[in-house]
Amino acid sequence: MSRFSEPQDPTFQALNNSIAFDWRLAPYDIEQSLAHVRMLGRQGIIGADDVSELEQALEGVREEVTAERFEFRPEDEDVHMAIERRVTELAGPVGGKLHTARSRNDQVATDMALFTRAHAQAAQAAIKDLMRALVAAAERHLDWRMPGYTHLQRAQPVYLSHHLLAYVWMLARDLERFSAVETATARLPLGAGALAGVNFDTDRQAVARDLGFAGVAENSIDAVSNRDFVLDYLAAAATCGTHLSRLGAEIVLWSSSEFGFAEVSDAWASGSSIMPQKKNPDAAELLRAKAPRIAGHFVALQGVMHALPLTYNKDMQEDKEHLFDAVDTLELCLAAASGMIEGIAFDRERMAAAASDEFPAATDVADLLVRRGLPFRECHGVVAALVKRAVDSGRRLTDLRPEELAEHSDLLDEEYYRVLAGESWLESKDSEGGTSLRRVQEQLERARELLG
Amino acid sequence: MSRFSEPQDPTFQALNNSIAFDWRLAPYDIEQSLAHVRMLGRQGIIGADDVSELEQALEGVREEVTAERFEFRPEDEDVHMAIERRVTELAGPVGGKLHTARSRNDQVATDMALFTRAHAQAAQAAIKDLMRALVAAAERHLDWRMPGYTHLQRAQPVYLSHHLLAYVWMLARDLERFSAVETATARLPLGAGALAGVNFDTDRQAVARDLGFAGVAENSIDAVSNRDFVLDYLAAAATCGTHLSRLGAEIVLWSSSEFGFAEVSDAWASGSSIMPQKKNPDAAELLRAKAPRIAGHFVALQGVMHALPLTYNKDMQEDKEHLFDAVDTLELCLAAASGMIEGIAFDRERMAAAASDEFPAATDVADLLVRRGLPFRECHGVVAALVKRAVDSGRRLTDLRPEELAEHSDLLDEEYYRVLAGESWLESKDSEGGTSLRRVQEQLERARELLG
Amino acid sequence: MSRFSEPQDPTFQALNNSIAFDWRLAPYDIEQSLAHVRMLGRQGIIGADDVSELEQALEGVREEVTAERFEFRPEDEDVHMAIERRVTELAGPVGGKLHTARSRNDQVATDMALFTRAHAQAAQAAIKDLMRALVAAAERHLDWRMPGYTHLQRAQPVYLSHHLLAYVWMLARDLERFSAVETATARLPLGAGALAGVNFDTDRQAVARDLGFAGVAENSIDAVSNRDFVLDYLAAAATCGTHLSRLGAEIVLWSSSEFGFAEVSDAWASGSSIMPQKKNPDAAELLRAKAPRIAGHFVALQGVMHALPLTYNKDMQEDKEHLFDAVDTLELCLAAASGMIEGIAFDRERMAAAASDEFPAATDVADLLVRRGLPFRECHGVVAALVKRAVDSGRRLTDLRPEELAEHSDLLDEEYYRVLAGESWLESKDSEGGTSLRRVQEQLERARELLG
Amino acid sequence: MSRFSEPQDPTFQALNNSIAFDWRLAPYDIEQSLAHVRMLGRQGIIGADDVSELEQALEGVREEVTAERFEFRPEDEDVHMAIERRVTELAGPVGGKLHTARSRNDQVATDMALFTRAHAQAAQAAIKDLMRALVAAAERHLDWRMPGYTHLQRAQPVYLSHHLLAYVWMLARDLERFSAVETATARLPLGAGALAGVNFDTDRQAVARDLGFAGVAENSIDAVSNRDFVLDYLAAAATCGTHLSRLGAEIVLWSSSEFGFAEVSDAWASGSSIMPQKKNPDAAELLRAKAPRIAGHFVALQGVMHALPLTYNKDMQEDKEHLFDAVDTLELCLAAASGMIEGIAFDRERMAAAASDEFPAATDVADLLVRRGLPFRECHGVVAALVKRAVDSGRRLTDLRPEELAEHSDLLDEEYYRVLAGESWLESKDSEGGTSLRRVQEQLERARELLG
Repeated sequence: MSRFSEPQDPTFQALNNSIAFDWRLAPYDIEQSLAHVRMLGRQGIIGADDVSELEQALEGVREEVTAERFEFRPEDEDVHMAIERRVTELAGPVGGKLHTARSRNDQVATDMALFTRAHAQAAQAAIKDLMRALVAAAERHLDWRMPGYTHLQRAQPVYLSHHLLAYVWMLARDLERFSAVETATARLPLGAGALAGVNFDTDRQAVARDLGFAGVAENSIDAVSNRDFVLDYLAAAATCGTHLSRLGAEIVLWSSSEFGFAEVSDAWASGSSIMPQKKNPDAAELLRAKAPRIAGHFVALQGVMHALPLTYNKDMQEDKEHLFDAVDTLELCLAAASGMIEGIAFDRERMAAAASDEFPAATDVADLLVRRGLPFRECHGVVAALVKRAVDSGRRLTDLRPEELAEHSDLLDEEYYRVLAGESWLESKDSEGGTSLRRVQEQLERARELLG
Repeated sequence: MSRFSEPQDPTFQALNNSIAFDWRLAPYDIEQSLAHVRMLGRQGIIGADDVSELEQALEGVREEVTAERFEFRPEDEDVHMAIERRVTELAGPVGGKLHTARSRNDQVATDMALFTRAHAQAAQAAIKDLMRALVAAAERHLDWRMPGYTHLQRAQPVYLSHHLLAYVWMLARDLERFSAVETATARLPLGAGALAGVNFDTDRQAVARDLGFAGVAENSIDAVSNRDFVLDYLAAAATCGTHLSRLGAEIVLWSSSEFGFAEVSDAWASGSSIMPQKKNPDAAELLRAKAPRIAGHFVALQGVMHALPLTYNKDMQEDKEHLFDAVDTLELCLAAASGMIEGIAFDRERMAAAASDEFPAATDVADLLVRRGLPFRECHGVVAALVKRAVDSGRRLTDLRPEELAEHSDLLDEEYYRVLAGESWLESKDSEGGTSLRRVQEQLERARELLG
Repeated sequence: MSRFSEPQDPTFQALNNSIAFDWRLAPYDIEQSLAHVRMLGRQGIIGADDVSELEQALEGVREEVTAERFEFRPEDEDVHMAIERRVTELAGPVGGKLHTARSRNDQVATDMALFTRAHAQAAQAAIKDLMRALVAAAERHLDWRMPGYTHLQRAQPVYLSHHLLAYVWMLARDLERFSAVETATARLPLGAGALAGVNFDTDRQAVARDLGFAGVAENSIDAVSNRDFVLDYLAAAATCGTHLSRLGAEIVLWSSSEFGFAEVSDAWASGSSIMPQKKNPDAAELLRAKAPRIAGHFVALQGVMHALPLTYNKDMQEDKEHLFDAVDTLELCLAAASGMIEGIAFDRERMAAAASDEFPAATDVADLLVRRGLPFRECHGVVAALVKRAVDSGRRLTDLRPEELAEHSDLLDEEYYRVLAGESWLESKDSEGGTSLRRVQEQLERARELLG
Repeated sequence: MSRFSEPQDPTFQALNNSIAFDWRLAPYDIEQSLAHVRMLGRQGIIGADDVSELEQALEGVREEVTAERFEFRPEDEDVHMAIERRVTELAGPVGGKLHTARSRNDQVATDMALFTRAHAQAAQAAIKDLMRALVAAAERHLDWRMPGYTHLQRAQPVYLSHHLLAYVWMLARDLERFSAVETATARLPLGAGALAGVNFDTDRQAVARDLGFAGVAENSIDAVSNRDFVLDYLAAAATCGTHLSRLGAEIVLWSSSEFGFAEVSDAWASGSSIMPQKKNPDAAELLRAKAPRIAGHFVALQGVMHALPLTYNKDMQEDKEHLFDAVDTLELCLAAASGMIEGIAFDRERMAAAASDEFPAATDVADLLVRRGLPFRECHGVVAALVKRAVDSGRRLTDLRPEELAEHSDLLDEEYYRVLAGESWLESKDSEGGTSLRRVQEQLERARELLG
């Protein structure tokens, strides 16, 4: 019985009840209840019989949930009440002992920590899959030339492998970020009670060990007020999503007729309802499109937590939908990126042709002058003037005659033509982390190590 | 048959297909298909028999949708394909004519415009309901005194009616905003085809009239690239949500023991899982919590549209979930706010006691000095010194003795005590829009006019 | 003198004082003070001598501000205090009468409304400039062919003029949005006092007329609590910024070697510090980059207002920097877009070559079959099969032989080759709003009308 | 000389040039140039004389910058050009050698990493200051009772020290977050050149050691495309800002007359322009208001990076203003929070009175029944009924007579009155992390350890 004399308004219930989405926490809620019950038993707070009856009922509920036979009812309000209701149906009045020395405030924080931890781990696994797909693609296209771009202008040629590996290192940072999220979930809220601790002699450390936490939240008020780990997940997911959006954007670009560098496989494309010839890289577009959604969840949850007085407030129920949708979005995007990369076909000729554009070698001509003693800034000026001369007269740099070169610098001789002709521009970028094959192979080695 | 030789990857479909959420567009999709078919018939693009068969099939689908008997299948990809599939099942091969002179690009833009228009209207209706609830509450509490706050410090007393009416004027601006959203949906995209117009002699003006649009989108490229009206809805909803969050925040505050100004009815409160005495204003907290969610949708959809080359890109599929969730959130919050306001009980004594705090009358003392010729800035200084003297000695302003007053200004006489004693501070705020009863009644009159 | 006995902490002042940014409100603050003073005089609240002395001092301050001779001092706290301080320096003690019947709360709201109105007008003027630049560019490139894209895949050819005009209609909606912002600023806050109205018999309607407001804010509490019009500006600016980001993104794309459709003029490009050959479309990139900044301001200010109890709270000081930066960003971007568009050079040959790609005509072949009675969906299948056949065998659609066509449909005859050869695909898109020249000229006519 | 024949448009320069804000990077730019020059010398890429002349000039520039004598000119475009320009003025043509084997792309990424690292460290220092201020405040108010709240309803009493320490643990997580930001900056971009590596035999490891980096960025493309560490800073700052906003919100609340728990010192308050009696907790309000601003920067920069093709794009120039403002905002807020906490005065009596409200002891009555064997859920029901009985009849729980208790449960005897009377509710919350004094002292011990 409640202290209220009036039933809840249906509109209020529609707004207030979380069972429509927090049913996803059921496995975690059961797991924590089992650990909680065992601890209550060991501490003598409930009897051994109680423990065994509650364990049996909780295992029964777990089976029903796993088999998707569990019936979440609209009137259950939330997943915690649904499970306690069912435990009581299965075990009788002893079910009412489940909530001893516990509040929904520490309970839901614990569920959220467990859920977040599980999906921080899942994100890491999915990120590694994508890294493997990219490493494999880099290996398959080790010495394929393509233009490197700045400002979407051809700047200097690189190997496709080098370009693909750039994403591997972005994702390696995402791994670190999600690993930090895991750490952020590692302090057990359970035992904080409603906010002040509980009136029983509980053993939080034991529950923490049982549930795989590194320790307990040090302050009961903070324990129930804290959703930092959800924010951490959302921040990590937003940045990972932004990385995927850059990958998606590049595949969209490369799939255009104008670039013509890549073609996604039929399994990852869709057609048009009206234009029979179309092959659209929809998956790449959606990778591109999803990042703002995750960033939106981050800013929204920051907004929810903003200015919220301690301790638990109902506002914090909003954490769930933001997290759940971010989890689903990110995991789907990572899986899709892996699949798409595995099936993508690159066009060696189109890429090589684009990379053979001569202007990107201008830096190399400037560096030739540097080696001959001219300060770089002056070399830059000399070569810029040569470029202007060539562009203005509709010629390539190699079309400039020796006497024309001489007008700009007396340091320019036959070597000028050799530098431009050599196509050695990639291999000369042999500084650490550069695009020369030797350096790319070093990178591949390190990436493989990282992936174990 | 498609031009592809490989089936779609299931992960791709999970990412790509929108049927899981865009089924909500079904009624709008059917409505536009009916208008489209009728126009095709009138223009002689399809035959009269085709029209009647398609109409019949579409009406059949409408019935199934209305009765919730329509089966949306995962393999349908999207609502448009689902409906065309069903039309073809019902009508046979003629169903294939439905998509004549139309593309999914202009079709989905039209569905979205129709959906947005309907919910911009629904928002206006729900806002008016809340305005009515607030006006009624203002009428019930016309002359109840309460403190007005700045910086959450008691500043000057006001009538509760005046305070409640402040929300009415906020909501009146929301009405204008949603009315502008309606206008923003009023240019028909249909007929733009994939992006360039269609190869048939269509009559877009007729379709526009048929579907209640004010005119047609002037440029076919813009027609399929445009989602401004969704952004407009989200912006309007975000601001309306922020208004509701302020209302929610105040009710949370007023429901605290410390304020004790208000109590939500049992039908709009919930209890605690562990603390039997608790009565929590959950609905008010959730009103407070939902605004960032809507703002998050706005910023996310801006992010989706950001830097997107024309015309249609798959990224734009993201518009739907952002809009749908914003619509559901706002409509639920508005309904909840109305219900909560109708049932809320204010505590006249607590409010009046708080409003009788004497310090808020300090401005009135300063204004007394103004009337006696002292520049306001000097009056402010005199009264600040009196306040400091009172606070420092633990007294009220009326406790200061005439000789003490005289130390600060020779303009302070018996009138000083009258101003402080009179409790006339509310009625003296008789400037237009002020809190005097006469002015509040003027406001009520205008609010009633606005609500028709 | 203040009621406080301790000076403010310098860190507090650094956080609290707004003079470092709100000095920009000075012209508006002076304007409203002049109107306020005149009204006080007419109502007999201050004497005629006071009015003339205050007016003279205010005009003096105005001159100093205009000539950038006005000294804003760090210790001034805010622009209002700076101006009142200077008025008092110039006019003597009568300066202390300036703040009669006014509070900083209604004063700052009024300044913000005046500032927002002025910049909503400035935005409209700048938008019109850009529309004019686009219309002029459309006129210069009326019948230049280019591919229209969906999913960044060539879809159907269009005229460049048609594509440029798409932006004109986006901007036309921005005009409407900023016009609504103007309307949202049109209710005068001044006269609301701190929150409850004032103790004097003021004439707010007169001040409203004097300052160009349509009316007065109906409720004094709402008047000082309201920043909706700032949110409205930010929402309008965010959407306009997103439009500009799409334009910027397309120019970046078109400036790539791969597209080669456009080249920004030297005046709107920059070079590389290391690669002398580079010509980077930096302005286009920055147009692309600025939209999220404005959306960020919107979401931030929504966050500030979220859950804020009425009436004025110091939090609202945050409105200024968000608005000011958005105003500066948008006005600069609009001016830059106009300048860039005026100087951009398109490459007619590259665009035409890209537009002559034959596959985009596939829809036209399908529509040929429609005219011969086949349901569109079946036509789509037939043509998709032809496309697959061509792609698989490395041929163009016109390379398919009549006997091959016959395998797919007996409705395909010589007309098939004519449709593909004709390059009439643009002119056949003659539906209203389509890309045919006649329709583009209609659009141009309407755009010119809109621009007066 | 550049390859361009036309000067830049002034509007373009206003949009493009970053010198107006990136001058803040000057110290970092000089530091990296010194390390770069030394490496170039050691590797024999430039001569020993060049090194010494460049070092001398750079030191000269450093002095000018430190003494604020350095003249940043509008035409400098950016800080890198300004410094190179000045180096060349001081050292002559050898200044042109500074940019050998370097690009602005890797240079600016390195500046940003150095700046971010420095301010991640500064944030940690400022956070520790605030933690110390809170620990000291907790020590001063160790056993002061106050209500703990959920849903802003009094729930269970706690000690003020326990409440203040909750913020210490939030801030401890912020420390970890900023420490991770430091790690995220620890891979040197310099040496990546424009994007592909450089044509010289550089020693990036040496530069990394020299500048305090842990290693080098493994991939040159990623090195110049990466701004993750800025996003990491913004995410950490947003969450820290949200923590501060909760602290600010509580101080605002506690400073109200209704709560009356706290009063900020005069040094941290401000008055009213019109109400002489007002003492406003402006600093607390601004702490509350600033969090959305930082979250706005995060979402904006995610928006900038979203969908950006590799490698460097001008869009990335937006990273600076977002970061700089977030740094300034956060550092100011942290300093202000420390100062405000140091000076705040709590009202022991008001807090204790609020904490003595009897209803919060209801859980303790329920737990009494649990100890007597009743399942918790039933105990909850019994006590809820008692609460209802008391509330309905306007009495306190202790006013209920034994015979009334007996109607609800035969387990309720004299102990009922003892539990309610005892005020032992705080000390009974003796579970780990709970509010009992012993547990709070444990916490204090751990907090002191953490702060070294």
